[in-house]
Amino acid sequence: MNPGNTILLDHGSGGIASQELISQIFLKHLDNSILASLEDSAVMENHPGKIAFSTDSYVVDPIFFPGGNIGTLAVHGTINDLTMRGARPLCLSLGLILEEGFKLDDLERVIVSIAECAKSADVPIVTGDTKVVPRGKCDKIFINTSGIGIVEDGVNVSSTMAQEGDLILLSGSMGDHGITIMTRRAGISLDGNLASDSAALNELVALLLDKLPSGSLHTLRDPTRGGVATSLNEIAAAAGLAVEIDDQAIPVKPEVRAACEIMGLDPLYLANEGKCLALVAPEQAAKALQLMRSTAVGTDAAIIGSLKAGKAGQVVLRTAIGGSRIITPLHGEPLPRIC
Amino acid sequence: MNPGNTILLDHGSGGIASQELISQIFLKHLDNSILASLEDSAVMENHPGKIAFSTDSYVVDPIFFPGGNIGTLAVHGTINDLTMRGARPLCLSLGLILEEGFKLDDLERVIVSIAECAKSADVPIVTGDTKVVPRGKCDKIFINTSGIGIVEDGVNVSSTMAQEGDLILLSGSMGDHGITIMTRRAGISLDGNLASDSAALNELVALLLDKLPSGSLHTLRDPTRGGVATSLNEIAAAAGLAVEIDDQAIPVKPEVRAACEIMGLDPLYLANEGKCLALVAPEQAAKALQLMRSTAVGTDAAIIGSLKAGKAGQVVLRTAIGGSRIITPLHGEPLPRIC
Repeated sequence: MNPGNTILLDHGSGGIASQELISQIFLKHLDNSILASLEDSAVMENHPGKIAFSTDSYVVDPIFFPGGNIGTLAVHGTINDLTMRGARPLCLSLGLILEEGFKLDDLERVIVSIAECAKSADVPIVTGDTKVVPRGKCDKIFINTSGIGIVEDGVNVSSTMAQEGDLILLSGSMGDHGITIMTRRAGISLDGNLASDSAALNELVALLLDKLPSGSLHTLRDPTRGGVATSLNEIAAAAGLAVEIDDQAIPVKPEVRAACEIMGLDPLYLANEGKCLALVAPEQAAKALQLMRSTAVGTDAAIIGSLKAGKAGQVVLRTAIGGSRIITPLHGEPLPRIC
Repeated sequence: MNPGNTILLDHGSGGIASQELISQIFLKHLDNSILASLEDSAVMENHPGKIAFSTDSYVVDPIFFPGGNIGTLAVHGTINDLTMRGARPLCLSLGLILEEGFKLDDLERVIVSIAECAKSADVPIVTGDTKVVPRGKCDKIFINTSGIGIVEDGVNVSSTMAQEGDLILLSGSMGDHGITIMTRRAGISLDGNLASDSAALNELVALLLDKLPSGSLHTLRDPTRGGVATSLNEIAAAAGLAVEIDDQAIPVKPEVRAACEIMGLDPLYLANEGKCLALVAPEQAAKALQLMRSTAVGTDAAIIGSLKAGKAGQVVLRTAIGGSRIITPLHGEPLPRIC
């Protein structure tokens, strides 16, 4: 499109260069009949149930990292936010803010990932928008994805539905995304193959909704920024109950634990991009755990604690040596631009 | 929240500072029960009809200007994009990317405007997300708004519905937004009170849908980036017909015309943020014009041309002296960050 193969201001004009970008990169990879109509908004069939709606912007640095890139996060993150209300994701929007001079090859690589993730999760990108800002006015690429889902009748999943006695399941190991970005940015090399856990959770959640008795899955939350500690505090506050978790039950990969020790971090506060917390009626927790473990993204799932009467909003960690400590929400920012 | 009253990286952490920002600025002004639940996604009642979905990011510079600010554009722009498919807007999302050091007072001013515009158009903000990037990694504030609307049964408004003989209505004067931003940025002072036309079109469009016979409103388009020229080219291409417009019929404010002459610009390519093109069956065009003019945002509406057999996709302008010229889509970027 231009000799340097980079994004030009003209690509954001709404004119001919914008149309070229749309046809040569976006429609080439993301093609579907709704998106291809290129109208001011997408129009699609409705489905019975309530509507779920979510939005997230992604500003991660670096934009490419082991296990994913800014595009995979954008697709997985918004699918997961919809899924956390028990919704079946219907479609996504894609809003790009590009820096003048951003390489078209890198843009295409991100769009290819977005297309793959959207296809794999069966949630099409149906509408989009691209803005270009002059060099130095953003950092390469920022992405917003918003999404619509349908919450079928009878499904009611929310922080306020959590009940005393609920067991708390975590779908896999903590902190893989946070440590991947952090070590990548610091230039630290870890043994092993640690990668971001960037993944869509809609299949795992659909399994829980389909196979557990109606009403036994109370609350879902994906512990992204702020980590498991912050999500559990939010759940405890919304439920007006106390959370107790068992340090030894919480899955953490050895390389994440090692990196946390080196860097003085607590895995409970690290970001995850393909994990969820699920609060389930105690008599269904074993079945829920088995269902989670039967999915590719939930093989390391564990029951990590329970919801108890006690000080409303408090999260207590029981340690291996029989002690306990209060887990507060995140204070301070351990790492900007984690997602 | 901090001595300098500016955005800190911590405000984007997902932790306690994020919660403070949400409660002290966002919920204070945007409060509604769906947003206040602060879940990963909003869940709301569905309505019969098809679903319309749209997204737009806003990066305008300067963020405050006569007639509006980046927040008014974000609300009006996405409402208008939904409306251009004949949808009744149901709700909006709000995704913010903030630069470290951005003034909290300016943020609150933008949020107050967003709240006012959303309330005035009766389209609530139901879900949101905030990211903070380090100083110099974005420019003050970027906003994404996405929106959901419902297209009622029997409504089918699209570029492909345009038919030979349709008359083309423009809801008001061209280029007010483009010239306002352009002169503001260049430090040029104009006589008069020129301001951005930033406005929501959902009331005007609802009136057309309610009062015109079913099926007589064929196509709607809001000529934002790329202006009326680019929108008409898109309509002509989608319809496979030719557009003919009459130079003398096109409403342009004298101060916009004067600024265009000074700056060597063509008003046909300037951005508008509160105007629409409507293609209407010829026998209903007079009524449509009267309906448009009965609204606050459509007082200067005019019939500017028609859709004809001829070279598919071609737009021809008839001039006052009896000549004609071909109007191509926008080439090049006259002004980055116009919206």
